[in-house]
Amino acid sequence: MFFSRRIEHCQVCGTRVEYRIPADDNRERAVCPACQHIHYVNPLNVVGTLPIWEDKVLLCKRNIEPRKGLWTLPAGFMELGETTEEGAVRETDEEAGARIQVLGLYSVLNVVTAGQVHFFYRAKLLDTDFNPGPETMEARLFTQAEIPWDELAFRTVRMTLQNYFDDRREGQFGIHCADIR
Amino acid sequence: MFFSRRIEHCQVCGTRVEYRIPADDNRERAVCPACQHIHYVNPLNVVGTLPIWEDKVLLCKRNIEPRKGLWTLPAGFMELGETTEEGAVRETDEEAGARIQVLGLYSVLNVVTAGQVHFFYRAKLLDTDFNPGPETMEARLFTQAEIPWDELAFRTVRMTLQNYFDDRREGQFGIHCADIR
Repeated sequence: MFFSRRIEHCQVCGTRVEYRIPADDNRERAVCPACQHIHYVNPLNVVGTLPIWEDKVLLCKRNIEPRKGLWTLPAGFMELGETTEEGAVRETDEEAGARIQVLGLYSVLNVVTAGQVHFFYRAKLLDTDFNPGPETMEARLFTQAEIPWDELAFRTVRMTLQNYFDDRREGQFGIHCADIR
Repeated sequence: MFFSRRIEHCQVCGTRVEYRIPADDNRERAVCPACQHIHYVNPLNVVGTLPIWEDKVLLCKRNIEPRKGLWTLPAGFMELGETTEEGAVRETDEEAGARIQVLGLYSVLNVVTAGQVHFFYRAKLLDTDFNPGPETMEARLFTQAEIPWDELAFRTVRMTLQNYFDDRREGQFGIHCADIR
């Protein structure tokens, strides 16, 4: 996870930028008065998994801000050079040290105020030998009854878990799309 | 559409950046040697629609590069402050001047070499009174037999159209996920 700082200088030539609406545009952008470079800032994708072992779900206790000490599904920012699914598998390895088989895209959740789109893939754990990375205090399996609902890090994690337990009861897993503001 | 320039200067303080792997990271980033700001570059979302009127699909002839003069579904970069669906509706208005009712998410396509994820929503046109914006030469309805397959602008547009005509024949519309490299 990382936070973004307001653009003050041109990333191409270093000149202090101006905020204005460029020609043929309808939004304010950071524009360089020297080289005319326009800096666009767009939403980011967060990619992760819902790793399942028998009747249990794998959660990670966050060792970094934001929400340090709270529980999350393994997830993080999508990187260049990978697909959403590859990013989700990479984050599951980095945060939980867990080996999975991906079963399919499970939720696509717009988090508008954060400028993020969260993707979660349903996955089958191949073993229970976890090896959490530095961003995770603890990786642990939870039954539905054991889920720490009041100590979840993100609303998209809560929503994805709720959908999963509902779908499991019904015996059918679709793709869930929702918006959080 | 826009292209991204390599980061040469810190966006916070203007100092020339260095490319190196930060502590606790595993990828090279543009790091400021003065203020230590780390610049992350991540994939972008392109959001659009598949607008349907009776047995026809709406395509737009591009008036801008890349792929000027070729046909596309209305789509463009997702902006901050909107959901993927809201962005798709906005682009359909901006590029085609078309009013639609969104029926649901239809394709999620990773375009790895471009560093993009493309989302297309299936939509019902509310009328055929189009009013293309400056990025579009012409907005026109095509039956399946009329689709200019050799003059389509992007592979994700071709894939989404092919899926649509296949699904229409079968009478069932799911969500299609695929990767393009």
